[in-house]
Amino acid sequence: MEIPAAELDRYAELVVRTGANVGRGQLVFVGGLLGHAPFARAIARAAYRAGARYVDVRYVDRHIERGLIEFGPEETLGWSPPWLMERMRATDGQATIGITGDPEPELLGDLDPHRVGRSRMKDLTEESLRLLNAQATNWTLAAFPNEGWASAVFEQPDVGRLWEAVAFAVRLDENDPVAAWDAHIDRLERRAAALNALDLDAVRFAGDGTDLTVGLLPNSHFRAARFTTADGRSHIPNMPTEEVFTAPDARRTEGTVRSTRPLALRGQIVRGLELRFEAGRCVDVRAETGADVVREELASDEGAAYLGELALVDGSSRVGQTGLTFFDTLFDENATCHIAYGAGLTAGLDGDPPAEGFSTSSIHTDFMVGGPEVAVDGLTRDGRTVPLLRDDVWQLPE
Amino acid sequence: MEIPAAELDRYAELVVRTGANVGRGQLVFVGGLLGHAPFARAIARAAYRAGARYVDVRYVDRHIERGLIEFGPEETLGWSPPWLMERMRATDGQATIGITGDPEPELLGDLDPHRVGRSRMKDLTEESLRLLNAQATNWTLAAFPNEGWASAVFEQPDVGRLWEAVAFAVRLDENDPVAAWDAHIDRLERRAAALNALDLDAVRFAGDGTDLTVGLLPNSHFRAARFTTADGRSHIPNMPTEEVFTAPDARRTEGTVRSTRPLALRGQIVRGLELRFEAGRCVDVRAETGADVVREELASDEGAAYLGELALVDGSSRVGQTGLTFFDTLFDENATCHIAYGAGLTAGLDGDPPAEGFSTSSIHTDFMVGGPEVAVDGLTRDGRTVPLLRDDVWQLPE
Repeated sequence: MEIPAAELDRYAELVVRTGANVGRGQLVFVGGLLGHAPFARAIARAAYRAGARYVDVRYVDRHIERGLIEFGPEETLGWSPPWLMERMRATDGQATIGITGDPEPELLGDLDPHRVGRSRMKDLTEESLRLLNAQATNWTLAAFPNEGWASAVFEQPDVGRLWEAVAFAVRLDENDPVAAWDAHIDRLERRAAALNALDLDAVRFAGDGTDLTVGLLPNSHFRAARFTTADGRSHIPNMPTEEVFTAPDARRTEGTVRSTRPLALRGQIVRGLELRFEAGRCVDVRAETGADVVREELASDEGAAYLGELALVDGSSRVGQTGLTFFDTLFDENATCHIAYGAGLTAGLDGDPPAEGFSTSSIHTDFMVGGPEVAVDGLTRDGRTVPLLRDDVWQLPE
Repeated sequence: MEIPAAELDRYAELVVRTGANVGRGQLVFVGGLLGHAPFARAIARAAYRAGARYVDVRYVDRHIERGLIEFGPEETLGWSPPWLMERMRATDGQATIGITGDPEPELLGDLDPHRVGRSRMKDLTEESLRLLNAQATNWTLAAFPNEGWASAVFEQPDVGRLWEAVAFAVRLDENDPVAAWDAHIDRLERRAAALNALDLDAVRFAGDGTDLTVGLLPNSHFRAARFTTADGRSHIPNMPTEEVFTAPDARRTEGTVRSTRPLALRGQIVRGLELRFEAGRCVDVRAETGADVVREELASDEGAAYLGELALVDGSSRVGQTGLTFFDTLFDENATCHIAYGAGLTAGLDGDPPAEGFSTSSIHTDFMVGGPEVAVDGLTRDGRTVPLLRDDVWQLPE
């Protein structure tokens, strides 16, 4: 089954106009995998209709990456070609749309995990994170249901069923999806404001093998994922988004956390991930599968082993309501609470990053830590413990 | 039917080692359409096995180009993005492999031909031709049989039959294709030497609606398509190749030429093309279909309307023996004699280009003018007329 063209066009319009909010005269940089072509084409048409000056689509073929990891020399394993750096720099002030939904999420699963880990284009990722933190581009991420991805979710290539779940998660079932998105983000922003009003010093996750306390910075600031660029253009960086997030104090994470969902990471599936933190730093990694890829990422630079993001999601999440594991971070991180090791997000601060306690890294990897068995509490600066989530239900007044 | 993996790997090895002749430590730039992924992957693996430092594959999606032509602004219609210029410049001193075999050769056929014509990336093509004439890269072109292309050839998606024809044309049916290629190019080089020994002043094509005389330069030099880069690396730029070619005197083409095969050009099929030349310049274009795209190309710069290449191919050509029209210039130009309007090829000269009479352009478009009904004669500087081809049979001693 293919997604009907009219529905795909409607989805592309939403992503272009509400997600990236493409402006007249902008360049639009689209990035996806080979299997994403139908969606990339719909996005390109929608972007031109929205007034884009030029749409550049870059297709990544993971099989070519696989060839490099299998047969290529060590010296270029993590190399960022200068023409890709030039393209990345050209996104400054322009619009960017990334497509997720991996047709082959375990394509690299049989390769040497150390080489897989080192094959990441480090300079390119760093530049990308720099532009992100500079609020240089109006960008969004959205997923394209395809047979391979559907097979990972359902063990059969049921694209129709996956499309139904994705369309529900991004509110395409609404008569007026744009209005529905506005109301939804407004609600998340009220939730963020309530959290900020608590003046929290830390957040604690407890239950189901997890006992983790994540310290916050004096200027850690919860917010919803509606961003504004340095040029003043508003955009919604993730479709779907169900989170309120902040940047924690990288020095004050303590305890053990057990991931509650599998994590698709660099062509491998990490299952049963368990991390132990001391004085902010991850000092032990265990997993049923994929531990070495995580270890390789955590070793990639000084900031990689520290937390850069803390995000809260409750059971009212449309993604969570589907009851599915998507093997796609854009979805799974919006089904439940998550944290990320690596680079801190300046968007999660009120004002500039402090001299110490804000993680800097070329890595930023989210993984899921929430669920009905995990209680989440806020520890306030004046010594109170405030329940935030119990049995996946939001505890603060809305 | 898919091409068996082992056969595709053998083909990729031939293209990488005999065609581009990839050297240890080289960057390898692969360019193809989305439908070429299986071949691009085989090429990448073969290139790494041959010692490539890094393989960069750029996939072009003609549907994105279609979006630009349909909905994009005039200002970026022929724009060359700086990151693609950077990539092109990076090919200097490296290896390049282009994949042909268009899955949708008529994809742009229903669009405004003037906008189609202007959508070409002019600066990028100019840079590409500059590197070509500077012998800066060891490069080759090879085709990947796919369903869409097979449908254009056979009116049904018979990939197996197309693969058989392609494998025959590139001598993969031989036990030792590398030795067969050596012997084949040696024979073409003897043919070129015999032509050069005649000291020709012009070549005349006559018959089947054609009466065209193409003047040659004092240093026009026939050669086969085995090139050597400025760095001294030999390569075969076309697989297949069956031609001996030269650069003509751009000022001295006279008469009318009727193309003997359809021409796939920028997503359209040009049928029944007829061009009239006066004092070197094309002054009239007619065609049953696609005339406007040709007119747009000829108008793109000063040199575009002059001839830049003259190539002779006889009926012993393996491509010609298949009896097929491939709707792919790499194949159809190697089935029969062809000429090209636009940029002259310095490889077709003995020494440097003269101050006048050598065409410079951002265009170089080959089209087919030979066949059993077209007699080809050489006119020598001392006034003799020497038959070169009669009824597709080569007339000089071999």
